[in-house]
Amino acid sequence: RSSTYICFSFVNAFPVILLDLLPAKNGEEATMQFLLELVDILTNYVRKTFDRSTKVLDFHHPHQLLEGMEGFNLELSDQPESLEQILVDCRDTLKYGVRTGHPRFFNQLSTGLDIIGLAGEWLTSTANTNMFTYEIAPVFVLMEQLTLKKMREIIGWPSGEGDGIFSPGGAISNMYSVMIARYKYFPEVKTKGMSAAPRLVLFTSEHSHYSIKKAGAALGFGSENVVLLSTDERGRVIPADLEAKILDVKQKGYHPLFVNATAGSTVYGAFDPINEIADICEKYNMWLHVDGAWGGGLLMSRKHRHKFSGVERANSVTWNPHKMMGVPLQCSAILVREKGILAGCNSMCAGYLFQPDKQYDVSYDTGDKAIQCGRHVDIFKFWLMWKAKGTVGFEQHIDKCLDLSQYLYDKIRNREGYEMVFEGVPQHTNVCFWYIPPSLRGMEHNSKEYREKLHKVAPNIKAMMMESGTTMVGYQPQGQKVNFFRMVISNPAALQSDIDFLIDEIERLGRDL
Amino acid sequence: RSSTYICFSFVNAFPVILLDLLPAKNGEEATMQFLLELVDILTNYVRKTFDRSTKVLDFHHPHQLLEGMEGFNLELSDQPESLEQILVDCRDTLKYGVRTGHPRFFNQLSTGLDIIGLAGEWLTSTANTNMFTYEIAPVFVLMEQLTLKKMREIIGWPSGEGDGIFSPGGAISNMYSVMIARYKYFPEVKTKGMSAAPRLVLFTSEHSHYSIKKAGAALGFGSENVVLLSTDERGRVIPADLEAKILDVKQKGYHPLFVNATAGSTVYGAFDPINEIADICEKYNMWLHVDGAWGGGLLMSRKHRHKFSGVERANSVTWNPHKMMGVPLQCSAILVREKGILAGCNSMCAGYLFQPDKQYDVSYDTGDKAIQCGRHVDIFKFWLMWKAKGTVGFEQHIDKCLDLSQYLYDKIRNREGYEMVFEGVPQHTNVCFWYIPPSLRGMEHNSKEYREKLHKVAPNIKAMMMESGTTMVGYQPQGQKVNFFRMVISNPAALQSDIDFLIDEIERLGRDL
Repeated sequence: RSSTYICFSFVNAFPVILLDLLPAKNGEEATMQFLLELVDILTNYVRKTFDRSTKVLDFHHPHQLLEGMEGFNLELSDQPESLEQILVDCRDTLKYGVRTGHPRFFNQLSTGLDIIGLAGEWLTSTANTNMFTYEIAPVFVLMEQLTLKKMREIIGWPSGEGDGIFSPGGAISNMYSVMIARYKYFPEVKTKGMSAAPRLVLFTSEHSHYSIKKAGAALGFGSENVVLLSTDERGRVIPADLEAKILDVKQKGYHPLFVNATAGSTVYGAFDPINEIADICEKYNMWLHVDGAWGGGLLMSRKHRHKFSGVERANSVTWNPHKMMGVPLQCSAILVREKGILAGCNSMCAGYLFQPDKQYDVSYDTGDKAIQCGRHVDIFKFWLMWKAKGTVGFEQHIDKCLDLSQYLYDKIRNREGYEMVFEGVPQHTNVCFWYIPPSLRGMEHNSKEYREKLHKVAPNIKAMMMESGTTMVGYQPQGQKVNFFRMVISNPAALQSDIDFLIDEIERLGRDL
Repeated sequence: RSSTYICFSFVNAFPVILLDLLPAKNGEEATMQFLLELVDILTNYVRKTFDRSTKVLDFHHPHQLLEGMEGFNLELSDQPESLEQILVDCRDTLKYGVRTGHPRFFNQLSTGLDIIGLAGEWLTSTANTNMFTYEIAPVFVLMEQLTLKKMREIIGWPSGEGDGIFSPGGAISNMYSVMIARYKYFPEVKTKGMSAAPRLVLFTSEHSHYSIKKAGAALGFGSENVVLLSTDERGRVIPADLEAKILDVKQKGYHPLFVNATAGSTVYGAFDPINEIADICEKYNMWLHVDGAWGGGLLMSRKHRHKFSGVERANSVTWNPHKMMGVPLQCSAILVREKGILAGCNSMCAGYLFQPDKQYDVSYDTGDKAIQCGRHVDIFKFWLMWKAKGTVGFEQHIDKCLDLSQYLYDKIRNREGYEMVFEGVPQHTNVCFWYIPPSLRGMEHNSKEYREKLHKVAPNIKAMMMESGTTMVGYQPQGQKVNFFRMVISNPAALQSDIDFLIDEIERLGRDL
């Protein structure tokens, strides 16, 4: 039975100095005192993060912070600071930052502050180890293995068989998918380089994440060999366009290698039709990757996973628990249907790290599968959240966020001064809309003047939001469409009243534009 | 003035349930109680980590942990666990892990548990934000910028000018160096792929880290186009061999692009002669990268930085504060002499993230320089440690570790039963040696039997060490040399008595082999 009362007392008065801390002899008391003072600062921050009467941020320009705010000096120096000053620095760092867990922070795909996930990260940094070998991360390596298997089961691969690894983010996970596709069809590129293969072409939606193009540039394909696919008005790939572009590429004598189907696009939240794309990939013997970095969480929801229909036919899947599932940054998985291919693609068999003559089963050493050497423990917080919530807890969170997004959609679709960027209920929590200030209402929509004025509305409102610190939401142009707001909901703290607040705030700030 | 007494009391008894935690209404008390119970577990772990009477690890085989140890069940389930069970899981996770901060843990280049660094990580995970834009990480983005500048000043680039970014580890930092070298000489590869360039060749020591070869394979050069350079008996590149191999490559009609000089090799701790390599790079118009992932810390030491002589002539430098400088994992920097080239190489100008029409100076947005999109905040713990220690504090730590390593070297170089893998005082803290059990002493060194038997000694002793949990040190073969121990010292908690303990332990465990 755990205690209901926790108490720490100290004989020594603050400040202690750095050299009093562990590993100093008799450094325990000073260390405990310092850490608990810090925890006091952190728990206060946690408390305030969820308090709607606090601001989301206290905005300052770079030059203001660089000049030093009331004694908060960012410059590094040769001589040590006192521990008392270190704690002040910690307080100031939080003070001038952005509360990404605040119920009214909607600015990014990753929002929220999950308490169990936070606990998991605190433990991870205390354990301070490295995922490359079972030897020094036995428990974490096994947690990763079991969790990846569970994720593959949810994807629908038989018995959860296959391969996978946690990587430092969705862009790297997508890069893995391109690398292993190339290795599958042209393994000699690993040793001989791109000249050993014909000109290889990758296909991805014009709405897809830029990391596919980035991977194409980095891995030596060239960004021109990343062909962008046309989409329908909802931002979903048009399968006929994919097939036409494959044929075009083949006719030129190039080799179509890889298709990325996005499951939850960054701006529209669109889901490409995986089954139809899979048919085409099978027909032309191409690798099918599903980028579910943002959409992946919906696989946990019985109500929404139909949007992933056909995902079990993919060769690889990116899925970022640090987005829709509320796991603290960083937590991204690349999952692969074929077992062993990650190691085949990436192994270099470094003798100093992956000795074959260890006393345990070295197939548990994961490092040689990775493009990294050292690898941060990203699994524990996710594993712990899964334990604490259960699969059902993630499902409830996903369903609640989708419901909230529908609430927002219903609220503004016919509201005066709003125009939706695309028609129909969003597939994910992305609600894209223009706010039209009274001064622009009734103007000819196609006029240059209207478009130029509307283009400035979202940036202006966003700037005022940040200055007043009340809420944050993203905006961007897309193709020919001028700047619009992209509202996304992944924050477990958000309620309908926060959506109402956002709408009121946009109208308050934008009224006189 | 800070309080000297910290006390938390709770009205409710444990267990609270997950749904009682924030963001639940009135969830503050339950949240604080849960977090403080966790902190109690973590601070106990910290205390024990520095206690030499505790074991470094409690070893179990994968199948044992998978079967479940006394109720520690790694499997994930559909239904939630109680928070009380979650805390038990946290305790068990630490119990079956490896204490990488223990004064007798010498197994990896990254060891130790720095209390300030730990505090920095706890704060980082509480802030839970993303480095890609100033918008949501204003303070951290500026800290990164100032710290990178300081590191460039220490390297010796005029006024600390240049570019850089923190990446998820040394392998990725080295990959960046290859990418930007290619972009510098053949920028069209970014759009057109490797076929737009002649056959490009990379050069690196046979003792260098495998990540250079891995980068060559991943980026489309092919591992065969990574030429390994011969080294002297201390593991340092022989410049004449580099020049000969460049000429050979040129004669074949290929293009020599890039040389990696290792500053602190993984096994021997060798420093390649940077100035002589730089002369050759200038002569043949090649990119010079210095991989100081492991050695970088020595730049902070007035006594040891001469080993980096010529580093200011490098085009790029990898430097991992998470190794020799004791910063918690992950913390690695790629530093570049030419300003703007990182963005030139990697930018894709994603409109949804890097809007040009923000209200602040968007040159502070870092995301488009990276191959990642989202990027974990790796800077804060390092910045905080620098504040707390000052430059002089890092210098003292480095000097102390090098002194300890010399202590070990002096102790065993002429001791019965030991043989050094290379002669002379190690350049870094790497001390490489064979332990020769009494049964092998006096045997003919070149006999097959001797070599086979000696090859098994280090793995056997290591297995026994892990079973008894008393200490950990690495071993590996290298080239024609059979398995030997590689001792490295980066742990701030290690004392001479711990070195004595290691030697006694090797002799105790190896005596009867």
